[in-house]
Amino acid sequence: VRQPSDEGAPVPQRRGHNRELIREKVYAAAVALISRQGYADTSVAEIAEYAGIGRGTFFNYFPHKDCLLNAWAQKRVQKLAHRLAVRAQNAADVTETLRACMSTLSDLNEEEPELSATMLTAWFQSGRPLAPRPSLSVILTGIIEEGRARGEIRSSADPELIAESLRDLYIGVLYRWTRSTADRRRGRLDTELQLAVSLLLHGLRPAAAPQRPDSDTPGNGDGRPM
Amino acid sequence: VRQPSDEGAPVPQRRGHNRELIREKVYAAAVALISRQGYADTSVAEIAEYAGIGRGTFFNYFPHKDCLLNAWAQKRVQKLAHRLAVRAQNAADVTETLRACMSTLSDLNEEEPELSATMLTAWFQSGRPLAPRPSLSVILTGIIEEGRARGEIRSSADPELIAESLRDLYIGVLYRWTRSTADRRRGRLDTELQLAVSLLLHGLRPAAAPQRPDSDTPGNGDGRPM
Repeated sequence: VRQPSDEGAPVPQRRGHNRELIREKVYAAAVALISRQGYADTSVAEIAEYAGIGRGTFFNYFPHKDCLLNAWAQKRVQKLAHRLAVRAQNAADVTETLRACMSTLSDLNEEEPELSATMLTAWFQSGRPLAPRPSLSVILTGIIEEGRARGEIRSSADPELIAESLRDLYIGVLYRWTRSTADRRRGRLDTELQLAVSLLLHGLRPAAAPQRPDSDTPGNGDGRPM
Repeated sequence: VRQPSDEGAPVPQRRGHNRELIREKVYAAAVALISRQGYADTSVAEIAEYAGIGRGTFFNYFPHKDCLLNAWAQKRVQKLAHRLAVRAQNAADVTETLRACMSTLSDLNEEEPELSATMLTAWFQSGRPLAPRPSLSVILTGIIEEGRARGEIRSSADPELIAESLRDLYIGVLYRWTRSTADRRRGRLDTELQLAVSLLLHGLRPAAAPQRPDSDTPGNGDGRPM
Protein backbone atom coordinates (compact mmCIF):
# COMPACT_ATOMS: atom_id res chain seq x y z
CA VAL A 1 0.00 0.00 0.00
CA ARG A 2 1.52 3.31 -1.12
CA GLN A 3 0.74 6.28 1.04
CA PRO A 4 0.94 9.98 0.34
CA SER A 5 4.28 11.33 1.46
CA ASP A 6 2.70 14.06 3.55
CA GLU A 7 1.25 11.75 6.15
CA GLY A 8 3.66 12.95 8.81
CA ALA A 9 2.41 15.85 10.91
CA PRO A 10 2.65 19.15 9.01
CA VAL A 11 5.36 21.49 10.26
CA PRO A 12 3.66 24.32 12.15
CA GLN A 13 4.20 27.77 10.61
CA ARG A 14 4.79 29.55 13.86
CA ARG A 15 7.26 30.15 16.68
CA GLY A 16 9.55 27.13 17.04
CA HIS A 17 9.34 26.50 13.31
CA ASN A 18 13.11 26.54 12.89
CA ARG A 19 13.68 24.40 15.93
CA GLU A 20 11.15 21.91 14.60
CA LEU A 21 12.94 21.85 11.23
CA ILE A 22 16.28 21.08 12.84
CA ARG A 23 14.72 18.40 15.01
CA GLU A 24 13.24 16.79 11.89
CA LYS A 25 16.63 16.96 10.16
CA VAL A 26 18.32 15.26 13.10
CA TYR A 27 15.56 12.68 13.24
CA ALA A 28 15.86 11.98 9.51
CA ALA A 29 19.63 11.59 9.83
CA ALA A 30 19.15 9.17 12.70
CA VAL A 31 16.64 7.08 10.77
CA ALA A 32 18.87 6.98 7.68
CA LEU A 33 21.86 5.74 9.68
CA ILE A 34 19.90 3.37 11.89
CA SER A 35 18.23 1.78 8.87
CA ARG A 36 21.68 0.92 7.51
CA GLN A 37 23.59 0.13 10.70
CA GLY A 38 21.03 -0.83 13.30
CA TYR A 39 20.12 1.12 16.42
CA ALA A 40 22.75 -0.28 18.76
CA ASP A 41 25.57 0.29 16.25
CA THR A 42 24.69 3.92 15.52
CA SER A 43 26.22 6.48 17.87
CA VAL A 44 24.92 9.92 18.73
CA ALA A 45 28.20 11.35 17.38
CA GLU A 46 27.58 9.73 13.99
CA ILE A 47 24.01 11.02 13.85
CA ALA A 48 25.13 14.53 14.77
CA GLU A 49 27.86 14.51 12.13
CA TYR A 50 25.47 13.19 9.47
CA ALA A 51 22.96 15.90 10.37
CA GLY A 52 25.68 18.57 10.32
CA ILE A 53 25.34 19.60 13.95
CA GLY A 54 27.51 19.23 17.02
CA ARG A 55 27.15 16.24 19.32
CA GLY A 56 26.08 18.53 22.17
CA THR A 57 23.39 20.09 19.98
CA PHE A 58 21.87 16.65 19.41
CA PHE A 59 20.96 16.51 23.09
CA ASN A 60 19.06 19.79 22.82
CA TYR A 61 16.61 17.96 20.59
CA PHE A 62 16.79 14.45 22.03
CA PRO A 63 17.98 14.49 25.67
CA HIS A 64 18.82 10.77 25.45
CA LYS A 65 19.50 8.55 22.47
CA ASP A 66 16.42 6.51 23.49
CA CYS A 67 14.26 9.59 22.85
CA LEU A 68 14.67 8.68 19.17
CA LEU A 69 12.64 5.57 19.97
CA ASN A 70 9.90 7.70 21.48
CA ALA A 71 9.87 9.98 18.45
CA TRP A 72 9.69 6.98 16.13
CA ALA A 73 6.88 5.39 18.12
CA GLN A 74 4.96 8.65 18.21
CA LYS A 75 5.22 9.09 14.45
CA ARG A 76 4.01 5.54 13.94
CA VAL A 77 0.94 6.08 16.10
CA GLN A 78 0.23 9.28 14.16
CA LYS A 79 0.51 7.34 10.89
CA LEU A 80 -1.76 4.65 12.29
CA ALA A 81 -4.41 7.20 13.27
CA HIS A 82 -4.12 8.96 9.90
CA ARG A 83 -4.41 5.80 7.83
CA LEU A 84 -7.16 4.29 9.96
CA ALA A 85 -9.27 7.41 9.58
CA VAL A 86 -9.23 6.68 5.83
CA ARG A 87 -9.09 2.92 5.81
CA ALA A 88 -11.76 2.21 8.44
CA GLN A 89 -14.05 5.03 7.34
CA ASN A 90 -16.57 2.67 5.81
CA ALA A 91 -16.03 -0.26 8.14
CA ALA A 92 -19.31 -2.11 8.71
CA ASP A 93 -18.60 -3.03 12.31
CA VAL A 94 -15.96 -3.29 15.00
CA THR A 95 -14.63 -6.50 13.48
CA GLU A 96 -13.78 -4.74 10.24
CA THR A 97 -12.28 -1.81 12.10
CA LEU A 98 -10.09 -4.06 14.24
CA ARG A 99 -8.99 -6.00 11.19
CA ALA A 100 -8.13 -2.77 9.39
CA CYS A 101 -6.21 -1.61 12.45
CA MET A 102 -4.13 -4.78 12.55
CA SER A 103 -3.49 -4.67 8.80
CA THR A 104 -2.34 -1.08 9.12
CA LEU A 105 -0.01 -1.97 11.98
CA SER A 106 1.29 -4.81 9.86
CA ASP A 107 1.91 -2.44 6.91
CA LEU A 108 3.74 0.06 9.11
CA ASN A 109 6.18 -2.64 10.18
CA GLU A 110 6.53 -4.39 6.85
CA GLU A 111 7.12 -1.24 4.82
CA GLU A 112 10.38 -0.70 6.71
CA PRO A 113 11.22 -4.15 8.04
CA GLU A 114 14.87 -3.52 8.93
CA LEU A 115 14.25 -0.17 10.58
CA SER A 116 11.20 -1.51 12.42
CA ALA A 117 13.05 -4.58 13.66
CA THR A 118 16.04 -2.68 15.00
CA MET A 119 13.92 0.08 16.57
CA LEU A 120 11.56 -2.43 18.16
CA THR A 121 14.43 -4.49 19.52
CA ALA A 122 15.90 -1.41 21.18
CA TRP A 123 12.41 -0.42 22.32
CA PHE A 124 11.84 -3.81 23.92
CA GLN A 125 15.21 -3.71 25.66
CA SER A 126 14.63 -0.22 26.98
CA GLY A 127 11.46 -1.39 28.68
CA ARG A 128 9.33 1.20 26.89
CA PRO A 129 6.83 -0.75 24.87
CA LEU A 130 4.48 -1.76 27.65
CA ALA A 131 4.46 1.49 29.59
CA PRO A 132 0.97 2.32 30.86
CA ARG A 133 -1.51 4.00 28.53
CA PRO A 134 0.51 4.47 25.35
CA SER A 135 -1.25 5.92 22.37
CA LEU A 136 -1.90 2.62 20.65
CA SER A 137 -4.01 1.64 23.65
CA VAL A 138 -5.90 4.90 23.31
CA ILE A 139 -6.70 4.17 19.66
CA LEU A 140 -7.73 0.61 20.45
CA THR A 141 -9.86 1.73 23.40
CA GLY A 142 -11.66 4.16 21.06
CA ILE A 143 -12.41 1.37 18.57
CA ILE A 144 -13.70 -0.91 21.31
CA GLU A 145 -15.82 1.79 22.93
CA GLU A 146 -17.45 2.61 19.63
CA GLY A 147 -18.10 -1.09 18.97
CA ARG A 148 -19.60 -1.48 22.41
CA ALA A 149 -21.85 1.53 21.92
CA ARG A 150 -23.18 -0.17 18.79
CA GLY A 151 -23.78 -3.42 20.68
CA GLU A 152 -21.06 -5.28 18.80
CA ILE A 153 -18.91 -5.91 21.89
CA ARG A 154 -20.18 -7.60 25.03
CA SER A 155 -21.04 -4.88 27.51
CA SER A 156 -19.55 -6.74 30.50
CA ALA A 157 -16.00 -6.37 29.20
CA ASP A 158 -13.99 -3.27 30.07
CA PRO A 159 -12.87 -1.44 26.87
CA GLU A 160 -9.51 -0.53 28.39
CA LEU A 161 -8.86 -4.11 29.42
CA ILE A 162 -9.76 -5.31 25.93
CA ALA A 163 -7.50 -2.68 24.40
CA GLU A 164 -4.66 -3.72 26.68
CA SER A 165 -5.18 -7.37 25.76
CA LEU A 166 -5.27 -6.56 22.05
CA ARG A 167 -2.05 -4.64 22.49
CA ASP A 168 -0.46 -7.55 24.40
CA LEU A 169 -1.36 -9.88 21.54
CA TYR A 170 0.04 -7.37 19.00
CA ILE A 171 3.26 -6.95 21.00
CA GLY A 172 3.72 -10.71 21.28
CA VAL A 173 3.30 -11.28 17.54
CA LEU A 174 5.48 -8.27 16.81
CA TYR A 175 8.19 -9.47 19.16
CA ARG A 176 8.42 -12.84 17.42
CA TRP A 177 8.44 -11.00 14.10
CA THR A 178 11.42 -8.86 15.14
CA ARG A 179 13.29 -11.95 16.33
CA SER A 180 12.83 -13.88 13.10
CA THR A 181 15.31 -13.41 10.29
CA ALA A 182 14.49 -10.92 7.56
CA ASP A 183 13.61 -13.76 5.23
CA ARG A 184 11.09 -15.42 7.53
CA ARG A 185 9.80 -11.99 8.46
CA ARG A 186 8.30 -11.10 5.12
CA GLY A 187 4.51 -11.05 4.86
CA ARG A 188 3.79 -13.13 7.97
CA LEU A 189 2.78 -10.34 10.25
CA ASP A 190 -0.72 -9.60 9.00
CA THR A 191 -1.69 -13.28 8.95
CA GLU A 192 -0.67 -13.75 12.55
CA LEU A 193 -2.27 -10.52 13.71
CA GLN A 194 -5.57 -11.42 12.04
CA LEU A 195 -5.49 -14.83 13.70
CA ALA A 196 -4.97 -13.22 17.09
CA VAL A 197 -7.87 -10.82 16.48
CA SER A 198 -10.14 -13.68 15.39
CA LEU A 199 -9.28 -15.55 18.55
CA LEU A 200 -10.12 -12.60 20.75
CA LEU A 201 -13.29 -11.77 18.82
CA HIS A 202 -14.78 -15.21 18.86
CA GLY A 203 -13.24 -16.69 21.99
CA LEU A 204 -12.03 -20.20 22.64
CA ARG A 205 -15.36 -21.85 23.32
CA PRO A 206 -17.12 -23.76 20.54
CA ALA A 207 -19.85 -21.75 18.84
CA ALA A 208 -22.57 -24.19 19.93
CA ALA A 209 -21.48 -24.48 23.56
CA PRO A 210 -23.20 -22.46 26.26
CA GLN A 211 -21.16 -19.44 27.35
CA ARG A 212 -21.16 -20.51 31.00
CA PRO A 213 -21.76 -24.21 31.35
CA ASP A 214 -23.30 -25.21 34.69
CA SER A 215 -20.76 -27.74 35.80
CA ASP A 216 -23.29 -30.58 35.74
CA THR A 217 -21.55 -32.32 32.91
CA PRO A 218 -20.04 -35.52 34.26
CA GLY A 219 -16.34 -35.05 34.99
CA ASN A 220 -14.06 -37.62 33.47
CA GLY A 221 -12.08 -37.86 36.71
CA ASP A 222 -8.79 -37.08 35.04
CA GLY A 223 -8.29 -33.37 34.62
CA ARG A 224 -4.52 -33.59 34.62
CA PRO A 225 -3.47 -31.10 31.99
CA MET A 226 -0.32 -32.71 30.72
CA VAL B 1 -0.66 -21.77 49.19
CA ARG B 2 2.17 -23.55 50.97
CA GLN B 3 3.96 -26.16 48.95
CA PRO B 4 6.16 -29.06 50.02
CA SER B 5 9.78 -28.03 50.00
CA ASP B 6 10.75 -30.89 47.73
CA GLU B 7 8.96 -29.55 44.69
CA GLY B 8 12.25 -28.89 42.89
CA ALA B 9 13.61 -31.80 40.90
CA PRO B 10 15.21 -34.42 43.17
CA VAL B 11 18.98 -34.55 43.02
CA PRO B 12 19.98 -37.65 41.06
CA GLN B 13 21.99 -40.18 43.06
CA ARG B 14 24.47 -40.93 40.34
CA ARG B 15 27.44 -39.59 38.42
CA GLY B 16 27.31 -35.81 38.39
CA HIS B 17 25.74 -35.80 41.83
CA ASN B 18 28.48 -33.64 43.30
CA ARG B 19 28.47 -31.30 40.32
CA GLU B 20 24.73 -30.92 40.66
CA LEU B 21 25.10 -30.12 44.37
CA ILE B 22 27.64 -27.39 43.70
CA ARG B 23 25.47 -25.97 40.93
CA GLU B 24 22.54 -25.81 43.34
CA LYS B 25 24.72 -24.13 45.95
CA VAL B 26 25.83 -21.50 43.45
CA TYR B 27 22.25 -21.02 42.29
CA ALA B 28 21.02 -20.63 45.89
CA ALA B 29 23.75 -18.08 46.59
CA ALA B 30 22.76 -16.15 43.46
CA VAL B 31 19.08 -16.13 44.41
CA ALA B 32 19.84 -15.01 47.97
CA LEU B 33 21.95 -12.07 46.77
CA ILE B 34 19.69 -11.12 43.88
CA SER B 35 16.63 -11.11 46.16
CA ARG B 36 18.36 -8.50 48.34
CA GLN B 37 20.26 -6.44 45.75
CA GLY B 38 18.48 -6.95 42.46
CA TYR B 39 19.80 -8.77 39.40
CA ALA B 40 21.63 -5.88 37.78
CA ASP B 41 23.41 -4.91 41.00
CA THR B 42 24.66 -8.41 41.81
CA SER B 43 27.98 -9.35 40.23
CA VAL B 44 29.27 -12.80 39.38
CA ALA B 45 32.21 -12.14 41.72
CA GLU B 46 29.83 -11.52 44.63
CA ILE B 47 27.86 -14.66 43.91
CA ALA B 48 31.03 -16.74 43.68
CA GLU B 49 32.34 -15.35 46.96
CA TYR B 50 29.02 -15.93 48.70
CA ALA B 51 28.98 -19.52 47.42
CA GLY B 52 32.59 -20.07 48.48
CA ILE B 53 33.95 -20.74 45.01
CA GLY B 54 36.25 -18.89 42.63
CA ARG B 55 34.86 -16.51 40.05
CA GLY B 56 36.19 -18.72 37.25
CA THR B 57 34.45 -21.75 38.74
CA PHE B 58 31.11 -19.94 38.54
CA PHE B 59 31.36 -20.04 34.75
CA ASN B 60 31.77 -23.82 34.80
CA TYR B 61 28.22 -23.99 36.07
CA PHE B 62 26.69 -20.93 34.42
CA PRO B 63 28.61 -19.93 31.26
CA HIS B 64 27.02 -16.46 31.35
CA LYS B 65 25.38 -14.55 34.17
CA ASP B 66 22.14 -14.64 32.14
CA CYS B 67 22.15 -18.45 32.45
CA LEU B 68 20.88 -17.80 35.98
CA LEU B 69 17.74 -16.42 34.35
CA ASN B 70 17.33 -19.61 32.35
CA ALA B 71 17.81 -21.74 35.46
CA TRP B 72 15.27 -19.64 37.33
CA ALA B 73 12.74 -19.83 34.49
CA GLN B 74 13.23 -23.57 34.17
CA LYS B 75 12.62 -24.12 37.87
CA ARG B 76 9.48 -22.02 37.70
CA VAL B 77 8.06 -24.05 34.84
CA GLN B 78 8.86 -27.23 36.80
CA LYS B 79 7.02 -25.81 39.81
CA LEU B 80 4.10 -24.84 37.59
CA ALA B 81 3.84 -28.35 36.14
CA HIS B 82 4.16 -29.92 39.60
CA ARG B 83 1.51 -27.72 41.21
CA LEU B 84 -0.86 -27.91 38.28
CA ALA B 85 -0.75 -31.71 38.35
CA VAL B 86 -2.18 -31.45 41.87
CA ARG B 87 -4.30 -28.34 41.58
CA ALA B 88 -6.00 -29.09 38.27
CA GLN B 89 -6.41 -32.81 38.94
CA ASN B 90 -10.14 -32.53 39.49
CA ALA B 91 -10.80 -29.63 37.14
CA ALA B 92 -14.23 -30.02 35.53
CA ASP B 93 -13.22 -28.54 32.18
CA VAL B 94 -10.62 -26.53 30.30
CA THR B 95 -11.91 -23.30 31.84
CA GLU B 96 -11.14 -24.52 35.34
CA THR B 97 -7.76 -25.83 34.25
CA LEU B 98 -6.82 -22.54 32.60
CA ARG B 99 -7.97 -20.61 35.64
CA ALA B 100 -5.91 -22.88 37.91
CA CYS B 101 -2.92 -22.41 35.61
CA MET B 102 -3.18 -18.62 35.80
CA SER B 103 -3.66 -18.67 39.59
CA THR B 104 -0.60 -20.86 39.94
CA LEU B 105 1.45 -18.52 37.76
CA SER B 106 0.18 -15.67 39.89
CA ASP B 107 1.23 -17.49 43.10
CA LEU B 108 4.69 -18.21 41.74
CA ASN B 109 5.27 -14.52 41.13
CA GLU B 110 3.58 -13.20 44.26
CA GLU B 111 5.31 -15.58 46.66
CA GLU B 112 8.65 -13.93 45.80
CA PRO B 113 7.61 -10.53 44.43
CA GLU B 114 11.01 -8.80 44.67
CA LEU B 115 12.96 -11.71 43.24
CA SER B 116 10.38 -12.25 40.50
CA ALA B 117 10.31 -8.59 39.54
CA THR B 118 14.09 -8.25 39.27
CA MET B 119 14.53 -11.57 37.44
CA LEU B 120 11.70 -10.79 35.04
CA THR B 121 13.05 -7.32 34.34
CA ALA B 122 16.45 -8.79 33.44
CA TRP B 123 14.69 -11.53 31.48
CA PHE B 124 12.70 -9.00 29.47
CA GLN B 125 15.80 -6.94 28.76
CA SER B 126 17.79 -9.97 27.65
CA GLY B 127 15.15 -10.72 25.04
CA ARG B 128 14.55 -14.22 26.36
CA PRO B 129 10.94 -14.28 27.43
CA LEU B 130 9.33 -14.56 24.05
CA ALA B 131 11.74 -17.01 22.46
CA PRO B 132 9.93 -19.62 20.35
CA ARG B 133 8.40 -22.62 22.08
CA PRO B 134 9.35 -22.14 25.69
CA SER B 135 8.03 -24.63 28.20
CA LEU B 136 5.11 -22.51 29.36
CA SER B 137 3.77 -22.68 25.81
CA VAL B 138 4.15 -26.46 25.91
CA ILE B 139 2.10 -26.67 29.12
CA LEU B 140 -0.55 -24.34 27.74
CA THR B 141 -0.70 -26.23 24.44
CA GLY B 142 -1.29 -29.43 26.41
CA ILE B 143 -4.18 -27.87 28.31
CA ILE B 144 -5.76 -26.54 25.12
CA GLU B 145 -5.33 -29.81 23.23
CA GLU B 146 -7.02 -31.73 26.02
CA GLY B 147 -9.87 -29.20 26.13
CA ARG B 148 -10.27 -29.42 22.38
CA ALA B 149 -10.37 -33.23 22.50
CA ARG B 150 -13.26 -32.92 24.97
CA GLY B 151 -15.09 -30.48 22.68
CA GLU B 152 -14.63 -27.56 25.08
CA ILE B 153 -12.51 -25.52 22.67
CA ARG B 154 -13.57 -24.59 19.15
CA SER B 155 -11.95 -27.06 16.79
CA SER B 156 -11.09 -24.44 14.16
CA ALA B 157 -8.52 -22.76 16.43
CA ASP B 158 -4.93 -23.99 16.43
CA PRO B 159 -3.90 -25.11 19.96
CA GLU B 160 -0.38 -23.74 19.54
CA LEU B 161 -1.70 -20.37 18.42
CA ILE B 162 -4.07 -20.27 21.38
CA ALA B 163 -1.23 -21.19 23.73
CA GLU B 164 0.96 -18.48 22.24
CA SER B 165 -1.83 -15.94 22.63
CA LEU B 166 -2.45 -16.98 26.23
CA ARG B 167 1.25 -16.59 26.88
CA ASP B 168 1.28 -13.16 25.23
CA LEU B 169 -1.56 -12.07 27.49
CA TYR B 170 0.26 -13.49 30.54
CA ILE B 171 3.51 -11.77 29.58
CA GLY B 172 1.72 -8.44 29.08
CA VAL B 173 0.04 -8.58 32.48
CA LEU B 174 3.26 -9.78 34.08
CA TYR B 175 5.27 -7.02 32.47
CA ARG B 176 2.99 -4.33 33.88
CA TRP B 177 3.15 -6.11 37.25
CA THR B 178 6.97 -5.97 37.29
CA ARG B 179 6.89 -2.28 36.38
CA SER B 180 4.51 -1.29 39.15
CA THR B 181 5.91 -0.51 42.58
CA ALA B 182 5.97 -3.27 45.17
CA ASP B 183 3.00 -1.68 46.91
CA ARG B 184 0.75 -1.57 43.86
CA ARG B 185 2.02 -5.00 42.90
CA ARG B 186 0.46 -6.94 45.76
CA GLY B 187 -2.45 -9.20 44.93
CA ARG B 188 -3.32 -7.66 41.58
CA LEU B 189 -1.81 -10.31 39.39
CA ASP B 190 -4.39 -13.06 39.69
CA THR B 191 -7.31 -10.67 39.14
CA GLU B 192 -5.81 -9.36 35.92
CA LEU B 193 -4.81 -12.80 34.66
CA GLN B 194 -8.31 -14.17 35.28
CA LEU B 195 -9.79 -11.22 33.38
CA ALA B 196 -7.52 -11.91 30.43
CA VAL B 197 -8.48 -15.59 30.42
CA SER B 198 -12.19 -14.71 30.58
CA LEU B 199 -11.74 -12.42 27.64
CA LEU B 200 -10.05 -15.08 25.57
CA LEU B 201 -12.51 -17.79 26.60
CA HIS B 202 -15.66 -15.88 25.84
CA GLY B 203 -14.48 -13.50 23.14
CA LEU B 204 -15.44 -9.92 22.52
CA ARG B 205 -18.76 -10.48 20.79
CA PRO B 206 -21.98 -10.23 22.77
CA ALA B 207 -23.35 -13.62 23.81
CA ALA B 208 -26.52 -13.19 21.74
CA ALA B 209 -24.82 -11.99 18.56
CA PRO B 210 -24.20 -14.38 15.68
CA GLN B 211 -20.59 -15.54 15.47
CA ARG B 212 -20.20 -14.36 11.89
CA PRO B 213 -22.71 -11.70 10.98
CA ASP B 214 -23.46 -11.52 7.27
CA SER B 215 -22.65 -7.91 6.64
CA ASP B 216 -26.24 -7.10 5.65
CA THR B 217 -26.80 -4.94 8.67
CA PRO B 218 -27.14 -1.36 7.47
CA GLY B 219 -23.87 0.52 7.90
CA ASN B 220 -24.13 3.78 9.77
CA GLY B 221 -21.84 5.47 7.28
CA ASP B 222 -19.42 6.65 9.91
CA GLY B 223 -16.99 3.97 10.85
CA ARG B 224 -14.28 6.36 11.91
CA PRO B 225 -12.77 4.71 14.94
CA MET B 226 -11.66 7.69 16.91
